[in-house]
Amino acid sequence: MAQNIYDDPEFFQAYCGLPRSARGLDAAPEWPALRALVGEAAGVAGRRVVDLGCGFGWFCRWAADAGAAEVLGIDLSRKMLAAAEAATSEPAVRYERQDLDALRLPTGAFDLAYSSLTLHYLADLDHFFPSVHEALVAGGSFVCSVEHPIYTAPSAPAFVAGADGRATWPVDRYLDEGPRVTDWLAPGVVKQHRTITTYVRALRRAGFELIDLDEWGPTADQVAATPEWAVERDRPPFLLIAARRR
Amino acid sequence: MAQNIYDDPEFFQAYCGLPRSARGLDAAPEWPALRALVGEAAGVAGRRVVDLGCGFGWFCRWAADAGAAEVLGIDLSRKMLAAAEAATSEPAVRYERQDLDALRLPTGAFDLAYSSLTLHYLADLDHFFPSVHEALVAGGSFVCSVEHPIYTAPSAPAFVAGADGRATWPVDRYLDEGPRVTDWLAPGVVKQHRTITTYVRALRRAGFELIDLDEWGPTADQVAATPEWAVERDRPPFLLIAARRR
Repeated sequence: MAQNIYDDPEFFQAYCGLPRSARGLDAAPEWPALRALVGEAAGVAGRRVVDLGCGFGWFCRWAADAGAAEVLGIDLSRKMLAAAEAATSEPAVRYERQDLDALRLPTGAFDLAYSSLTLHYLADLDHFFPSVHEALVAGGSFVCSVEHPIYTAPSAPAFVAGADGRATWPVDRYLDEGPRVTDWLAPGVVKQHRTITTYVRALRRAGFELIDLDEWGPTADQVAATPEWAVERDRPPFLLIAARRR
Repeated sequence: MAQNIYDDPEFFQAYCGLPRSARGLDAAPEWPALRALVGEAAGVAGRRVVDLGCGFGWFCRWAADAGAAEVLGIDLSRKMLAAAEAATSEPAVRYERQDLDALRLPTGAFDLAYSSLTLHYLADLDHFFPSVHEALVAGGSFVCSVEHPIYTAPSAPAFVAGADGRATWPVDRYLDEGPRVTDWLAPGVVKQHRTITTYVRALRRAGFELIDLDEWGPTADQVAATPEWAVERDRPPFLLIAARRR
């Protein structure tokens, strides 16, 4: 079972203060790239969508507003589901509490599965990916974002000054997969470090074809608007993946 | 046109001294993983094979000895081609000098295209990948290795001691693609830094399906046999890719 850190009061309160929690998708700098992988609004109109790790339901509401026929948001956190329910008036959206490490979905029930910054909390991709595969129709899409393994690998994940004073990201243990414990928003947050190889192979093993892979960093325009993001181009924070059910 | 550093006398002499130059595939620690992507000997028996950046011809001779019907080795370096010719007695193998940035191959003439540690010298994947695609039969395979972008990205590509004295690899400029000039074996060697995203997208644009991707590092057995390789697990030196022509 995944750690349910989002129901930790200290973590939850700090998480509520993040721009993407308070202001939603438009405050997430990777959203334009992720939306492009989804296929913009055209990718959800008339479709049955499942959001795995839906949090406050921002994507669920976006999908419903973009014309999705049906949207199911799944999360483990009772606090987040309660907030999502409270914020949602779209009749196409419903929420359900599940541990994604024990995910159960109806067969062939969705055209699009989506998951934003969630999979690095899961212990077992070899349960999760086959479950998603089975829940999609043939030709259905799976689009997800995770923390990039360059971001999760280090023993000491913080920029340090390199030889010439330039910020560098001190990578070690890249190929040694497994839990990484950080003090992000609260002490003792457990994330699973996995290589890109592992994501790609697990997807293919589950029967997906890899369609796209985006080692996301801010664009030049985003850096111009928010100069402190420049350093995110030194090592990508996120990995976005699009796959298709065979 | 790619830099022809292999015909630089100083570089060539130093390169000849590397274990993989003197002793061939079995001295290249990534060879077992690369051979697995090729499909072991079964992947070449009876097949028409092209090796793009063949160097001393070790792979060409292995393929011929494993039963390949025909093997074409291509390189830009006159010195390497001369050494390859001198070392080759297999009648199935022939060599040809070409700049891979201006590659021309007959259409549908090969079942397998192979390229080991060469593509990071090329300026233009959008010429190279489509040329390889066109040279393969439908369903044909392309297997390659390149330096991993974690390896090529840094301004100062060398391990440094991290906070706790542990070796760390100082990543910066990961998303800023383009030439990286290093003093590897000789001064002023130019390699092209590209992200995994760029390799994957260029392959798909050319009409390939991604079959496998291996961020290679030494296995536990290899580290036990050669303890100084342990650090290569901190950041993978190579990226191996297998793709299939649609």
